[in-house]
Amino acid sequence: MKRIISIILSAVVCVTAAAQNVRWHDAAELTVIGKPISTAKAFTRIDTAQYKFANRTIDRYAGYSTGLAVLFETDSHVIRTKWTTGPSNSGANMTAIGQKGLDLYIMKDGKWVFAGVGSPDMVKEPFCNHEGTIVADMADGTRQCLLYLPLFDKVDALEIGIEEGAVIRPIDNPFRYNIVVHGSSITHGASAGRPGMTYAARFGRDNGFYCMNLGFSGQCKLQPEYAAYLADIKDVDAFIFDVFSNPKAEEIYDRFDAFVDIVRKAHPDVPMIFLQTERRETRNFSLAREKFESEKQSAAAKVIRERMKSDKDIYFITSEDFLGYEHIATVDGSHPSDLGFTYMLESISPKIRKIFRKYGIR
Amino acid sequence: MKRIISIILSAVVCVTAAAQNVRWHDAAELTVIGKPISTAKAFTRIDTAQYKFANRTIDRYAGYSTGLAVLFETDSHVIRTKWTTGPSNSGANMTAIGQKGLDLYIMKDGKWVFAGVGSPDMVKEPFCNHEGTIVADMADGTRQCLLYLPLFDKVDALEIGIEEGAVIRPIDNPFRYNIVVHGSSITHGASAGRPGMTYAARFGRDNGFYCMNLGFSGQCKLQPEYAAYLADIKDVDAFIFDVFSNPKAEEIYDRFDAFVDIVRKAHPDVPMIFLQTERRETRNFSLAREKFESEKQSAAAKVIRERMKSDKDIYFITSEDFLGYEHIATVDGSHPSDLGFTYMLESISPKIRKIFRKYGIR
Repeated sequence: MKRIISIILSAVVCVTAAAQNVRWHDAAELTVIGKPISTAKAFTRIDTAQYKFANRTIDRYAGYSTGLAVLFETDSHVIRTKWTTGPSNSGANMTAIGQKGLDLYIMKDGKWVFAGVGSPDMVKEPFCNHEGTIVADMADGTRQCLLYLPLFDKVDALEIGIEEGAVIRPIDNPFRYNIVVHGSSITHGASAGRPGMTYAARFGRDNGFYCMNLGFSGQCKLQPEYAAYLADIKDVDAFIFDVFSNPKAEEIYDRFDAFVDIVRKAHPDVPMIFLQTERRETRNFSLAREKFESEKQSAAAKVIRERMKSDKDIYFITSEDFLGYEHIATVDGSHPSDLGFTYMLESISPKIRKIFRKYGIR
Repeated sequence: MKRIISIILSAVVCVTAAAQNVRWHDAAELTVIGKPISTAKAFTRIDTAQYKFANRTIDRYAGYSTGLAVLFETDSHVIRTKWTTGPSNSGANMTAIGQKGLDLYIMKDGKWVFAGVGSPDMVKEPFCNHEGTIVADMADGTRQCLLYLPLFDKVDALEIGIEEGAVIRPIDNPFRYNIVVHGSSITHGASAGRPGMTYAARFGRDNGFYCMNLGFSGQCKLQPEYAAYLADIKDVDAFIFDVFSNPKAEEIYDRFDAFVDIVRKAHPDVPMIFLQTERRETRNFSLAREKFESEKQSAAAKVIRERMKSDKDIYFITSEDFLGYEHIATVDGSHPSDLGFTYMLESISPKIRKIFRKYGIR
């Protein structure tokens, strides 16, 4: 009996302490960045009521929080988060932190420095409700925060917890230019270790560019619905395309020009930078994969080089060094790990910045 | 009714095709490497009936297949696998492929080259039974294969499927010297993207050394039971220790000498290389973590430097560059991604090889 009372008492103490210490704020009222076109729901990258895609998988992915981030400043010594995602288990080739977790960076000496992750609860089914401390025991002072949202899940609600008496408020988006990145799972972020580690997020964060992520895992096949969405975006300064990873060679030949036509009509002078698809490690020993993948790469090179003859604002970045040369930079043969994305960025980042400079994007 | 018959017929056709095409072989009859002391069960790194540890978590980890690999050669054009693991869901900071999957390398031009993964089934609960093709459509010829087993799960059964008429047989362990690597989750392999990507596996594979993995996630605190196990190992050529990541500063001061005494008594002249624990990224903003972690590091440096005065075969490798300098090399602030392990190996690999050369290990 004594033990039961003691348990009840300590539970009461716990709840009281938590209630005293943490005040929860709806992150929807802070600055949410990453959407090329605004949406009704706070944490969805594309408004799926407004835009319909070819299949339900794409519709689902469109409603994900991929590439979105919340910007705020606070003088709290602790940052907690409470968020709700879909019920899915993690994919075999990604971490749950990347898939349904949060990833916080704090501005320090002019750079966004990693501060901590919101680790999703993968023990209590259905894996929807998550809560945790991202960072605690910080020094006094007001800090600017950049919190990336899950890459492969929807976020229905997100609250940020700060200590009683501390202040939290939105800050302006500090990233410059509107860079839209559209592509496959590689763009979507499989298999980044945490949400801020996609190549689009890293390229944006490291260079101060506003990169928006329209990666659609396995579903990026030069479909006209994507082109129509891209055409609807106002004020794009550049497109980066990873559109040769998912379609077969025939689909590349069949669809590429129609896709570019739609985007070009809406954005006549915007630079369009196409990344060749990586040389997948699944080719190392499979003759069938070698044939299939090299046909894709050769189709991509052909259609783009042909188009470049008549369009001076189209660029092509070849991919021979995207995964390094030691065959260790993917999780499963196809999807770059953080090491793969590092190799990829070492290759593409200087090339893209060089192109950007021609357009005054710096 | 027609539809039902058609479904039944196609199921029969499927089963027949599978039965015709694939012959299954028990991997326990091939060459299983990675155990410092042999075990009764094929795919367990430590015989948990023989060795008892301080708690049930360590007992469970001891029975995992961490660091084990199966060696064989085959002229099959396809390699399939069917394996049984425990029922656990994946940890939030690791991929299911790393945790419960398989990772195949094939010898090519004198190097072990990545060939494919066995991706665990994370859809059908309880996530125990997995089957899949690792690589298919290979050219004619006999190939030597190295298949790493799950890092964070037990393997109760593993079968390798080859095509009808093909041959599979064990090959000798090609790795030289016996290198025992004992440590924390960082050694255990959180958060390697796939089982062959731990630093111990990579260091061994890249240099031809036989590295055995005794990493115990969160549980490596200089306990005497580990020392007793290490003392029981015959024929060790070198120890690599990552034993300063889990214990608190006080535990390091209290336990280090007793731990070394036990191991030293059994292995008087064997080089013992101690890695300083990495500078965790959880220190970036938390004053409490900064204090806790720097106290650990300073305790480690003190005890080891003191011991080195009287033991010429003890070495210490400092860790300032283990995670690079951009704060992007962990999944969660503590656990290196494949990028983190790459930085770590760039640092430790030349230093360890230099020490090894003094002992004729090359």
